[in-house]
Amino acid sequence: MKRFSVKRDIYKGRVVHLRLEEHTLPGGHKGIFEVLHHRHAGAVLPFLDAKTLLLIRQYRPAVGRYFLEIPAGLIDPGESPLQCARRELEEETGYKAKNVKKLISYYTSIGCMNEKITIYKATQLHPGLKAHEATEVIETIPTPLSQVKQLIQRGKIQDSKTLIALQTILY
Amino acid sequence: MKRFSVKRDIYKGRVVHLRLEEHTLPGGHKGIFEVLHHRHAGAVLPFLDAKTLLLIRQYRPAVGRYFLEIPAGLIDPGESPLQCARRELEEETGYKAKNVKKLISYYTSIGCMNEKITIYKATQLHPGLKAHEATEVIETIPTPLSQVKQLIQRGKIQDSKTLIALQTILY
Repeated sequence: MKRFSVKRDIYKGRVVHLRLEEHTLPGGHKGIFEVLHHRHAGAVLPFLDAKTLLLIRQYRPAVGRYFLEIPAGLIDPGESPLQCARRELEEETGYKAKNVKKLISYYTSIGCMNEKITIYKATQLHPGLKAHEATEVIETIPTPLSQVKQLIQRGKIQDSKTLIALQTILY
Repeated sequence: MKRFSVKRDIYKGRVVHLRLEEHTLPGGHKGIFEVLHHRHAGAVLPFLDAKTLLLIRQYRPAVGRYFLEIPAGLIDPGESPLQCARRELEEETGYKAKNVKKLISYYTSIGCMNEKITIYKATQLHPGLKAHEATEVIETIPTPLSQVKQLIQRGKIQDSKTLIALQTILY
């Protein structure tokens, strides 16, 4: 059964596609919703060694400040989430990983958007080729695993994919 | 210093405000970004008793399926995040809480959006007044704390605010 119809196609950009959609809800009520269609993303929690994470510090224009986070990016057409995670790891940190294992998939903001992020854990890193875009301001931050809980408690990690990645391995 | 200028105001709706903005990045490069301005939200992890959470099962049109999640919603004008969390708890579950304590604030999707969610923990619940909108399809799901880790591992909890709330109390 088709559950919705497009009432207005507002904007299709590089990252998001915004539409007004009329949805028929379970139970039969209808409602108009602002829906953001967002490309599926891949993210990766890299370990430099058993006790050290490789986080990045990146400037995020949408919020207007830097975040301490894990490497991530949009999945390119024809790419799998795993391939995307491997590519973003190399582009953003300059490391390739011998071992990459899925941790979890989640949705960032289910009230308005279908963005899904699949997170991997990367170990056995070796040097690759860093490749930042001019509009990406990124530095790598080796971070002792022993400090991560305190960083979270002090509000120094506030990004959903990073908090959720750390949840799966920290505790 | 002003870090950006609005290049195009695309859409201002009930939940999101989408603009094309030119940002000057640290270092001096300029770039055009699709930025979603989103109202700050409040969320609440309610405990029915020491061993039982009160989750909700809600149909989410933006993704097209049900999610197991914690009560949450947009902060109304003039409302604090705490007042919002208390109001959403009562409207979505029919319970008020005597005790409400902040757990964490985070950003849902920093690549494209400034949406921030502040999460609270609610205990000592007592009956209040449920008030669903016609377009909200919600049922309450009492959930034993002992089952939560397994629900996450089996992919039954995939919503960012719910995963992050559980992280702060589970481990």
